[in-house]
Amino acid sequence: MTDIDLSSPHARLRAANPLIQCITNTVVQQFSANVLLAVGASPAMLDHEADAGQFAHLAGGLLVNFGTATNQQFLAADAAIGAVTADSTPWVLDPVSIGAVDFRTTRIRRAAADRPTAIRGNASEIAALAGTGAGGRGVESTDEVDAVLPAAAELARTSGAIVAVSGKRDAIVAHIDGVDHIARVDGGHALMPLVIGTGCSLGAVTAAYLAAVPPVDSSPGAGPAGLAAFDQFTAVVAAHAHFAVAGEAAATGAAGPGSYAVNFLDALHTTDDARIGEARVEVTRA
Amino acid sequence: MTDIDLSSPHARLRAANPLIQCITNTVVQQFSANVLLAVGASPAMLDHEADAGQFAHLAGGLLVNFGTATNQQFLAADAAIGAVTADSTPWVLDPVSIGAVDFRTTRIRRAAADRPTAIRGNASEIAALAGTGAGGRGVESTDEVDAVLPAAAELARTSGAIVAVSGKRDAIVAHIDGVDHIARVDGGHALMPLVIGTGCSLGAVTAAYLAAVPPVDSSPGAGPAGLAAFDQFTAVVAAHAHFAVAGEAAATGAAGPGSYAVNFLDALHTTDDARIGEARVEVTRA
Amino acid sequence: MTDIDLSSPHARLRAANPLIQCITNTVVQQFSANVLLAVGASPAMLDHEADAGQFAHLAGGLLVNFGTATNQQFLAADAAIGAVTADSTPWVLDPVSIGAVDFRTTRIRRAAADRPTAIRGNASEIAALAGTGAGGRGVESTDEVDAVLPAAAELARTSGAIVAVSGKRDAIVAHIDGVDHIARVDGGHALMPLVIGTGCSLGAVTAAYLAAVPPVDSSPGAGPAGLAAFDQFTAVVAAHAHFAVAGEAAATGAAGPGSYAVNFLDALHTTDDARIGEARVEVTRA
Repeated sequence: MTDIDLSSPHARLRAANPLIQCITNTVVQQFSANVLLAVGASPAMLDHEADAGQFAHLAGGLLVNFGTATNQQFLAADAAIGAVTADSTPWVLDPVSIGAVDFRTTRIRRAAADRPTAIRGNASEIAALAGTGAGGRGVESTDEVDAVLPAAAELARTSGAIVAVSGKRDAIVAHIDGVDHIARVDGGHALMPLVIGTGCSLGAVTAAYLAAVPPVDSSPGAGPAGLAAFDQFTAVVAAHAHFAVAGEAAATGAAGPGSYAVNFLDALHTTDDARIGEARVEVTRA
Repeated sequence: MTDIDLSSPHARLRAANPLIQCITNTVVQQFSANVLLAVGASPAMLDHEADAGQFAHLAGGLLVNFGTATNQQFLAADAAIGAVTADSTPWVLDPVSIGAVDFRTTRIRRAAADRPTAIRGNASEIAALAGTGAGGRGVESTDEVDAVLPAAAELARTSGAIVAVSGKRDAIVAHIDGVDHIARVDGGHALMPLVIGTGCSLGAVTAAYLAAVPPVDSSPGAGPAGLAAFDQFTAVVAAHAHFAVAGEAAATGAAGPGSYAVNFLDALHTTDDARIGEARVEVTRA
Repeated sequence: MTDIDLSSPHARLRAANPLIQCITNTVVQQFSANVLLAVGASPAMLDHEADAGQFAHLAGGLLVNFGTATNQQFLAADAAIGAVTADSTPWVLDPVSIGAVDFRTTRIRRAAADRPTAIRGNASEIAALAGTGAGGRGVESTDEVDAVLPAAAELARTSGAIVAVSGKRDAIVAHIDGVDHIARVDGGHALMPLVIGTGCSLGAVTAAYLAAVPPVDSSPGAGPAGLAAFDQFTAVVAAHAHFAVAGEAAATGAAGPGSYAVNFLDALHTTDDARIGEARVEVTRA
């Protein structure tokens, strides 16, 4: 049970069918595209420096993930981040592989400084980005979510981003109007980490949910910015709730990671607003 | 029912097991390779500028798709197109993402000017290439097939290519001996556009069907060139019929896009000549 | 039945959960990652020249496959091979597409000269690398395993690598203490070659099995080097036995290559030590 409304963000996503540009690693491009289609978004993976920025002006959201980045992808990300920043379009940074190697760590820190709307990673990656851990081994996590919660909260405060930590019990942290909002999301299944891209595609889906949030109204007389920020926080939590529910449902009838992955795509597609609203989510403020 | 023989092209494809070189986007490389294997062709995705041209001399058909093209892929495509043109090997252009962004649009138009045997895209892409539309959003179509039929016919006339428009009811247009031949293909399923690569892989399969067409005999006393052109048109229609039949069959037992994709690969593999010959295809001449 | 213990290598692999770096073609990256996860290894596909070498120092094993290599991947492979060689970390070369085109053939021969721990390919590729065949067409084999066995043995003698030939009845050849050890592995299924990446991912799994072999002890008083070499040979045979067993099991309930691929991932995950120990493997010495 939760005191935030998680069914509305899904309804908005389905209605908006947002175009999500993914500059992401080639290992998970196909899976991420299928995941985006399954949840009701439209994927586009354009990652050439000559037009990634122009394309980003058309997108409703952007994901940046440097897992197998080439020089062209690094340049394309710079251009796309510039474009979405100019347009106030939401974007998500996945710091996959941060901490393991110097060059990539530098590039990820550089992108993190460009004020992503949200940062989504596993516990090791969030700890490494926050400066309190050594990072993971590629896409796998070795730290526990609970252990990095303080670091995630600190990262949310200093970066201004919503910080999402994926694990057995996901944590999403946002610092809004001086208060830390922390959501914990239960669900998923032990087979989920055995399917490549379940983490990386959650970053893409987070961008899709954010793309369906009404734009912040900063005109005189509009509501406080905190309400818009809470809408974004709710959207990120809803993305994780969607994955948690579908990840749990996917285990039914699965004989291993192959059939689990198939079931997961089916479940992402068939999970409805009501089911997401019933996800096991707990929100605390501190 | 149709007055063209669609079962023979499939039989020829199975007998020929053609080698199809795909210079295509990394999102759909795996799916396209599996689709080619399922229909009885052999995929090869070599896309380095240093040997893509040499390899193209070995290939029976070529697909060019710039969805996530790198500088190396653009150069590789130039080399491969040069090689297949010299050898009169059929090749297919998929204008995915044309119209959305300038750089890519320019590169796609440049390839289109190199006289592809066939051009396959969705309605938005064909409209954009024909100069009558603004293009799509990545791999998704926003225009309807019917609406772009005049533009497709005009593109077929001016480019000399067979033009295939994918959608709820595919259209394939060829201008042969001064006459427009238009085939409409019914089939598929609503889940099909929710599987990434079902459009892009159809471009690869179109190349495979074209590779199994007997080469044009231009020696004195040989039949009119129009017969060879009609054979190519028939091959392209058969490729679409194969997808339409398998796409319809794949819905049986599918619980969502994940299981649909699995069923689709199975159905592509098990669909036989007779079943393709019974596809709901209508051919008109104008 | 066999006189080598194939269940222990699998138990060691499961216990070690080794990190396997794959510099491999983009067509099979996703499938290879899922295969590695299914057998109990951790995949990482970092392939940028700026950090691939640094990352290789963290890896337990490395796979190099130039199927769709870019200039950046060629440089990354040089760096990674240098790192694993310095660390005595095992690495596997997959000579996919050797022989077909000159540039790639040259690059593959260059990597082969860097003393890979194992070389895994199909019959055509092994023949081409050994200098007795013309190579294959991309990832497909046209020669039979039996026919290239002498070439494989010669390649094992001259290169010092364990040479694995994939086909209907796999052959693994090692030259240890002046004796050729040849293992033949039965299993798999006719649908297996219709799933892209079943060959390429076997190279990754071979690296994973090698990563779980205890390091060679070259200190005074340690056992003969031949014992360590035989452990590595056994590990490579066990990798092939794992695939053979799972590839056979995957046919149950498969309706085509789509469902076969799903079943295969499930079977790789659920196959246990005992079942691998019962694989149909024959070892001869000559």
